[in-house]
Formats: sequence, structure tokens, C-alpha cells
Amino acid sequence: MIKLFYAAHTCSLASHITLEEAGAEYSTVRISVAANQQRSPEYLAINPKGRVPAMITARGILTETPAILAFIAQSFPNAGLAPLDDPFAFAQVQAFNSYLCSTLHVAHAHRMRGYRWADDPAAIAEMQRKVPQSVGACYDLIERDMLKGPWVMGEASTICDPYLFTLAQWLEDDGVDPVRLPRVIDHRRRMSERHAVRKAIAEELG
Amino acid sequence: MIKLFYAAHTCSLASHITLEEAGAEYSTVRISVAANQQRSPEYLAINPKGRVPAMITARGILTETPAILAFIAQSFPNAGLAPLDDPFAFAQVQAFNSYLCSTLHVAHAHRMRGYRWADDPAAIAEMQRKVPQSVGACYDLIERDMLKGPWVMGEASTICDPYLFTLAQWLEDDGVDPVRLPRVIDHRRRMSERHAVRKAIAEELG
Repeated sequence: MIKLFYAAHTCSLASHITLEEAGAEYSTVRISVAANQQRSPEYLAINPKGRVPAMITARGILTETPAILAFIAQSFPNAGLAPLDDPFAFAQVQAFNSYLCSTLHVAHAHRMRGYRWADDPAAIAEMQRKVPQSVGACYDLIERDMLKGPWVMGEASTICDPYLFTLAQWLEDDGVDPVRLPRVIDHRRRMSERHAVRKAIAEELG
Repeated sequence: MIKLFYAAHTCSLASHITLEEAGAEYSTVRISVAANQQRSPEYLAINPKGRVPAMITARGILTETPAILAFIAQSFPNAGLAPLDDPFAFAQVQAFNSYLCSTLHVAHAHRMRGYRWADDPAAIAEMQRKVPQSVGACYDLIERDMLKGPWVMGEASTICDPYLFTLAQWLEDDGVDPVRLPRVIDHRRRMSERHAVRKAIAEELG
């Protein structure tokens, strides 16, 4: 059975929601970032990167949100979570998720995890200062060019939706004005009403 | 026909090599980063993100290296560039490429493109100072845990190999000592001898 290692308030929520959307049988293990559990020897044996999510499958361990989401979509094809038979449409899904992991999430991480890229506290503070601008620019692009509506890829919801929803939890704390993002905020609201989303969040925050 | 927009000395080389490995018919358009062509109205109409690579296909435009590489593998299945019929093995490929785009390439980008995340020159200099450490930690993980050998995924070369090769061009300039990375360096040398790699590099630097 699938086992998902997650931490509350992190991007692992996207994988958690997607497992629910897929109707998968799975269990979860909560990792405490506050207690630095992701750097414990036990967890590093599962994911040497010391990050969440990690997912144990019957075949072995997977990491990295875009890979996990596509794996869930391919493993539960009846759930219709990605256009699996259309390489171009699938690539559009992957391009969206790749943008989230490599650009939006990275911009956001400069607020709380600047120590990854600098040691000097003044430099870390300077990174934090720019987060509203760098994260805001990502959301402007998503609002204007990338979110087709009503779901990210258009009429059908896909593995892009839980991922955008997850990162969009943080935009106010990143200093981005939600008023300029009506489509992103409407997407977030509609996602928050889905059963899978409510169930995953209830478990993570319960 | 496929048209690839690339810039020399950037991650678009991975897509270029993969098109060669696939035996695809394609043309290329060189974008000059020195002339800021990636921010020109003409190019922004193709890729609003203002980045390379972008690839025009018969169905539309694709961006983001991991998405483009998987699309090429799926579009030219006879080239055997990814384990397309095995969702777990495909997810391992995707996890590797996702790590490169979201962690290794991002760490590297703090040397030349720190302005993305800070404005103050002192903070940008401080980011540059840490690049040997942050990029080096990524390569240590790849060397020890991720590169199965002889190719990234083991006996069969995949879309992971051109991507790792492309980023590994930069590791000495990032201040990482290659002596501690014998497996990564051996992989880079063997990749550099492949016909597809030589052809793509000759065109980009010619």
C-alpha cells in the first residue's frame, strides 16, 4: 500500500490531495519540520534529500511533487487526473507543474528558507524583502497566461489543480495582494470546497 | 516540424541533445541572452516567461525542460529515451529531472541571476559566495545516491542524461571541485563523446 510522508503547511499537501482524488488506498506519516524530523537518520534513509514529500510504493520510494503527481495519475487512470493518452496535453500539465516547483515554489522559499542560498542574515532579510515582488510576478503570469479556467488545464481538473491550490495557500503570507488575482483566488476557493481537499487538510491539521 | 528556441550556455542544450537522440526532424532559433532577446516582444509572444527553452510543435508551444524532455521521449517512442510503459520507472526519471530543475539549477542560478531574488548588490554577492556549497551539496547527493551508472537510470540511457550533462558543464565555474565527483565527471565525459551531444554543441557554439 502507498505510504505518504508529509509535513503540515508544505507542498506535500498536493500529493495528499491527489491520492484522495485518485481514490487510492494509502496511509500517511507526519514529519515534524519544527522538530527537524526531515533531517533524522530514519527519514534520510527514506529520502536522502531531507525534504517532503516522499512516497513509498510497492516498487520503491518516490520523491519530487511533479513526479509523484504524474505517477498517481498514471497508476489510477480511471480517476482521469491527467490526459495520459495525449503527449502534448500531458506535456502542458507537466510544464505547469514544473513551473510551480522550479519558479513559484522557489520564489516563495526565499521568505522562510533563505539560508539555503546565503548565510549572512542581512542577505537573508534582503531576500525576504523581495518575495512579494518575485512571487507576485509568478502569480501575475499564472493569472494572465497559464490558468485556463475553470481548472488549470481548462474544463477537466488535473494534477495541476491540487498543486496550484497548495502553493496558493501561502500567497497572502508572501505579501501578494489577492485582489489582483481574481482567477487564482476563485480557483483556490473552488478547490477548497472539494471533498478530497477537505479530507486531506482535515487530516494534516487535525 | 519542431522548432526549438535555445540560447547558448543554458539549460536549453538538454532539449537540443534530446531532439538529436530522438532522431527528430527539427529546426532551431538562437536567442541571444546578451542582447536580452528573451525579453523581446517577439519572444515573449512565444514564451511569456521570457526564458529558454521554448519548443514549437504541431500542436502548440511547450516550455520547461522536464516537460519538453518527456514530450520528446513520448513522441519518439522508438528512440527508447524513457521507460514509457512503466509508471514507476518513468516517475523515477521524472523525479531526477524535477530535482535538477527545482534544486540544482536553482542553486546554480544564484551565481549569475541572483537579481531574481534580491536587489541589494551585497545580498547578491553573498548568494554568489554560497554557490560552491549549495551546488556542491546537490552534486554530492547525485554522486552518492542518484546516479545509478553507467547512465543516470542504470543500463539504459534516458532523458535524464542530457539534462545532467548540460548542468554539469557549469560545475567548475560554480566553484565545485570535480575531484570529489568521479562518477559525475565520468558520466559527463562519456556523454560528451556521443554523436548527438557533439552535434548539438557544434551547432550552438558554431
